[in-house]
Amino acid sequence: MPERGPERVTDIGEFGLIRRIGDLVNREGVRSERVTLGIGDDTASFVPRPGYELLVTCDCVVEGRHYLPGKISPLDLGRRAMTLNISDIGAMGGRPLYALISLGLKGDILVQDVEEMYRGFLAELNPFGASIIGGNLTKSGNGMFIDITLIGEVEQGRGVRRSGARPGDVILVTGYPGQAAAGLQLLLRGADDPNILEHPLVKIFNTPSHRARVGETIAKTGLATAMIDTSDGFLGDLGHICEESGVGAELSKEKLPLSDDLREAALRLHRDPYDLFLGDSDDYELVITCRPQDMAPLRSILVQSCPVLLTEVGRITDAASEITLLLSDGGRRPVQRSGWDHFRLTNESKM
Amino acid sequence: MPERGPERVTDIGEFGLIRRIGDLVNREGVRSERVTLGIGDDTASFVPRPGYELLVTCDCVVEGRHYLPGKISPLDLGRRAMTLNISDIGAMGGRPLYALISLGLKGDILVQDVEEMYRGFLAELNPFGASIIGGNLTKSGNGMFIDITLIGEVEQGRGVRRSGARPGDVILVTGYPGQAAAGLQLLLRGADDPNILEHPLVKIFNTPSHRARVGETIAKTGLATAMIDTSDGFLGDLGHICEESGVGAELSKEKLPLSDDLREAALRLHRDPYDLFLGDSDDYELVITCRPQDMAPLRSILVQSCPVLLTEVGRITDAASEITLLLSDGGRRPVQRSGWDHFRLTNESKM
Repeated sequence: MPERGPERVTDIGEFGLIRRIGDLVNREGVRSERVTLGIGDDTASFVPRPGYELLVTCDCVVEGRHYLPGKISPLDLGRRAMTLNISDIGAMGGRPLYALISLGLKGDILVQDVEEMYRGFLAELNPFGASIIGGNLTKSGNGMFIDITLIGEVEQGRGVRRSGARPGDVILVTGYPGQAAAGLQLLLRGADDPNILEHPLVKIFNTPSHRARVGETIAKTGLATAMIDTSDGFLGDLGHICEESGVGAELSKEKLPLSDDLREAALRLHRDPYDLFLGDSDDYELVITCRPQDMAPLRSILVQSCPVLLTEVGRITDAASEITLLLSDGGRRPVQRSGWDHFRLTNESKM
Repeated sequence: MPERGPERVTDIGEFGLIRRIGDLVNREGVRSERVTLGIGDDTASFVPRPGYELLVTCDCVVEGRHYLPGKISPLDLGRRAMTLNISDIGAMGGRPLYALISLGLKGDILVQDVEEMYRGFLAELNPFGASIIGGNLTKSGNGMFIDITLIGEVEQGRGVRRSGARPGDVILVTGYPGQAAAGLQLLLRGADDPNILEHPLVKIFNTPSHRARVGETIAKTGLATAMIDTSDGFLGDLGHICEESGVGAELSKEKLPLSDDLREAALRLHRDPYDLFLGDSDDYELVITCRPQDMAPLRSILVQSCPVLLTEVGRITDAASEITLLLSDGGRRPVQRSGWDHFRLTNESKM
């Protein structure tokens, strides 16, 4: 009798897999009383909360493009894919509520790996009391993909858009952008290093954090004029704010928060750490603008409710769509947003 | 100087493509006053209508699996992908409102083909006053995919589920299920026939119709006990109703509505036309159950507002999950729902 290996999706079929996922979500996920139908009908349904706008975003993670197969655990992959989406809801100042997950799977994937991915989704959703209410499974010939639609809510009129920045506003950024981008480069170059997955920046690439609670708190203050997450890279996303607001920006190079880990990785990678900070990004920090007089109250509210490193890095100007880097010697360098405006590896684009 | 061919996605980049899509959607799509943010921010947002539940569904169409590249125009592909989703909203008795479209594209795809796909999406959405409010673009290595999340609404408590069928209820079906399944088989076998795309059943496969207006009308009557669309095949979906309702079903073989086109195609394909009707399905008819005394009022309401062929094909029984085919000679044949419960070609599964 041939020995049976671990169970694969082809062994239990689609409907078997749906049942397994449904059971796991029921057992380990959160139930919301506003959800009138979850997994298991033609659609899911829910009753929206009066006085709130609904936010909807969708982000897709493709094998070989947004993650490296074998270089991330199914649990972390699930967490990562969900974090990307939570970050978008947070960047509007909202709170995640309901997720629909569309998976393109190879038939030979292990059932336990799919279950671990779902545990990853839930690990990110549960702290918000948010739940998985539906999705779709399909066989995907070559690469796997995880496409998540996340629905959130924000008090009506409180959502923070990209379009509200005004000349004179200060530009703030959370955390240390660029660390995940450096982590990806380390991962790509150190594929043979058995310890590479333990490098702190590789960990940040594989399981990035979102700033959704920070975003929600900021939106409630009503003090931010614009907000965005750094999913297209710091400069790419500051560029989106400039474009949508019809403004420009000046950045002080010496104020940009570079972590020691990033500086060290840049040395190892023979890269300019500022390029890693400004350019590609796979971490999900927030870029926020507000009036100068609102910066102190904003900080003090954040310190009390969700402390985060918040660095003032520049000012909004009236030079439409121009971004200038102010150097420490008094020089000025216009910076290009090109370079990631391509249909290329590791980037996807939110519409 | 080399001659320039038609524009490809790699020529204009992601952000260029997003702009083109945004322009097209603004120009040719419908604008809803409840949408507070459409394409172009971290998320879309809208204000839900008081007294309504929101319905959410997502369905993914993968190249080579759900459609045959080169055998469907980009316009029809867009229409087809959107129809699948509209059908799910309709099967709950709802009305489609907002779509998010996540595309996995090869870099060499023509910009005009992507635009034509969007025209296909809009061709299906516009009649409902429904709009595209967001999405995602990503490069997909091998096969293209179109993953759509569609949000709809239904008056609170009026959604028709799979779980309400009771023993004694009649089973009704719209239209002629099986025609699209036969169309796919004709397409697969007649790949060399230059006229195959003109065959009426191939046309039904490539641009199936949904019954969303019928579903919405039925839900408003409050007379249906259960409803589902035939996306998993007639028997598969009747099976879903049986499972969720804890009931069984008896079907009268001679009452099953087989179209002349289907009978003719079955001859050509050396297939039993009843297998095509009961088994795989790529058309989107509705299976409805209701109390026998409600059938006449239901029919008369439908005749007035959206006429459709509605055939009584059997009864719900108390034999949990058993489906029996009653033959014209008085015989009874239990029918298996297996056969499409696999992780296999041309089927996807809604959770």
